[in-house]
Amino acid sequence: MKSLTVNLGTRSYPIYIGAAILARAGEFLKQAGLRGTVAVISNPTVAQLYLDQIDDALTQDGFEVVPILVPDGEEHKNLDSLQTVYDGLIGKRLERKSCVLALGGGVVGDLAGFAAATYLRGVPYVQVPTTLLAQVDSSVGGKTGVNHRDGKNLIGAFYQPRLVLIDVAVLRTLPPREMIAGLAEVIKYGIIEAPELFALLEAEIEKLLQLDQERLVQTISTCCAIKARVVETDEREDDYRAVLNFGHTIGHALEAVTGYSRFLHGEAVGVGMAKAAAISEHLGFCDQDSVARIVSLIQKAGLPTSIPDDVSLTSLVQALEVDKKSAGGKIKFVMCAGLGKTRFHWLSTLEIHDALNR
Amino acid sequence: MKSLTVNLGTRSYPIYIGAAILARAGEFLKQAGLRGTVAVISNPTVAQLYLDQIDDALTQDGFEVVPILVPDGEEHKNLDSLQTVYDGLIGKRLERKSCVLALGGGVVGDLAGFAAATYLRGVPYVQVPTTLLAQVDSSVGGKTGVNHRDGKNLIGAFYQPRLVLIDVAVLRTLPPREMIAGLAEVIKYGIIEAPELFALLEAEIEKLLQLDQERLVQTISTCCAIKARVVETDEREDDYRAVLNFGHTIGHALEAVTGYSRFLHGEAVGVGMAKAAAISEHLGFCDQDSVARIVSLIQKAGLPTSIPDDVSLTSLVQALEVDKKSAGGKIKFVMCAGLGKTRFHWLSTLEIHDALNR
Repeated sequence: MKSLTVNLGTRSYPIYIGAAILARAGEFLKQAGLRGTVAVISNPTVAQLYLDQIDDALTQDGFEVVPILVPDGEEHKNLDSLQTVYDGLIGKRLERKSCVLALGGGVVGDLAGFAAATYLRGVPYVQVPTTLLAQVDSSVGGKTGVNHRDGKNLIGAFYQPRLVLIDVAVLRTLPPREMIAGLAEVIKYGIIEAPELFALLEAEIEKLLQLDQERLVQTISTCCAIKARVVETDEREDDYRAVLNFGHTIGHALEAVTGYSRFLHGEAVGVGMAKAAAISEHLGFCDQDSVARIVSLIQKAGLPTSIPDDVSLTSLVQALEVDKKSAGGKIKFVMCAGLGKTRFHWLSTLEIHDALNR
Repeated sequence: MKSLTVNLGTRSYPIYIGAAILARAGEFLKQAGLRGTVAVISNPTVAQLYLDQIDDALTQDGFEVVPILVPDGEEHKNLDSLQTVYDGLIGKRLERKSCVLALGGGVVGDLAGFAAATYLRGVPYVQVPTTLLAQVDSSVGGKTGVNHRDGKNLIGAFYQPRLVLIDVAVLRTLPPREMIAGLAEVIKYGIIEAPELFALLEAEIEKLLQLDQERLVQTISTCCAIKARVVETDEREDDYRAVLNFGHTIGHALEAVTGYSRFLHGEAVGVGMAKAAAISEHLGFCDQDSVARIVSLIQKAGLPTSIPDDVSLTSLVQALEVDKKSAGGKIKFVMCAGLGKTRFHWLSTLEIHDALNR
């Protein structure tokens, strides 16, 4: 097992990464100073697989478990599901000293985190991510929220968890398509911050797809450590944290115009990273070789790298306009400036349209 | 004009209190570092009276004003109205550097504040309270939120404004019933923290009802200064801030069981304070003379002091159980320990039931 800390003063918290550590959930929650009732937010798919296990782990350490289920899928990360969670928390009389535990992927984590941030003006919460994507990205850093029909994550809060518990053993039940989607964020860390991780992925990304437990613990730890460092530098994304959005500007727009149902988030980010790399090259930020390696690794992971022909560029670019990173009609775009390096560059939606059109 | 500061480190902000200072709104916003688009959240009643005025004041200083109206009344402080505000903000493409301005009473302020706290994970907001109650209480201190059908303010966030602008001239258009309701919170500050304010109110509360501008500025400043001090001590209500809930435990429950439509918040707090004072005496925390003075001043203000016969104690006590201040089945009750003094005391709902039944 590995552990690391996200250092944010009074809001600091530990991340534990290991194989089959779900069974020790009660111990970790107690160590984090939590007690009483735990509202486990999950979806029916994940609940069927792991709710009993987490229930046992928590009750044996004296916690009372209250499950609240929301429908599965990005299209349900909305105010309706949030209302379901509020109704559950209020119906079960959860108090300020109770805690919320997110058992699931990014949708459950973002939704549960936002519910925790806003129920009784804030109760503690714990992330137990069950997808690779959530384990390396969304469970760490305190971004919580829901989608609006006009754009992703437009409603939300910065609210840090008290603890993140990452069990790589649960990835055995993750559909391969989701596992591959998660690799998009792993590759992203290599591109923006860690050439050595990028090279390692080029050499043995198959090992991760084959669920080699030791390599998963190692790789996920590396990713979480990078994310922790970025979040420590700029918790509320005033500036540098936006580096994590590499590939996400176009990725988010692609998800939006396809109704959040055609692409998994990681798949859209695969396309977004390939396009961002190409734009970086066109605008002179990045060398051709790096871009070729980026596109090649994304493809090797089994991820898409191009915008489907039936998606109109015009609608895609319109979706960019509600981007949270926009200001004065321009978007703060993350350029790749060679592997492990990035540069922020403000682009108009027109410039992005033209770049995508080349 | 008077001004004071709520000192909360990087989240510190000024409060300006004066007569006819609405016309200077643009100047104050600029001083607070705000610029660009201002989404003015209001209701039709207040908008008809003051929207043009605030619009002029802001546009003359270079701001662009986007009004978003929500229905009037506590029963509309809910997730539906919140959705209306989100739709407006997103529809008008408000960006992170834009700001939200709450023009109205407590409902508008709490709702707009919560929308600001959660739109794009947080945009700046300004409070321009137009009721006495909002001016002395809800506009200061960063408590934002909406009601759930099972209880008040169950969904919300601690999120501080960048500026509070209090114009006592607007109280001329406030219905007398609302003016009286606002006095409940003014009296509360006297009870919990300021015997001299309490004595002043005993002597000349009529002057406030007659809208003596100078006395209003003076009294509202005193109230805001007390609130600022309490919030500075304990921003997130971990402990001492709960003192501000004097009279609110029973007040909130009374509002809930009467569907948030029969009593104005301040009226319910009038009843709640009278009952809290009586309970304080019964349990030996407070002398008889102080309780008599408290009840007498509440009545002198024109506020109710007793629970109507048709409201069942059982339902009232049930409503207490979802109180945010409850933990382990007990409620953190604020006792009066003589004028200007308080004591926290944990009471079960049964004990409250018995005390109310005496």
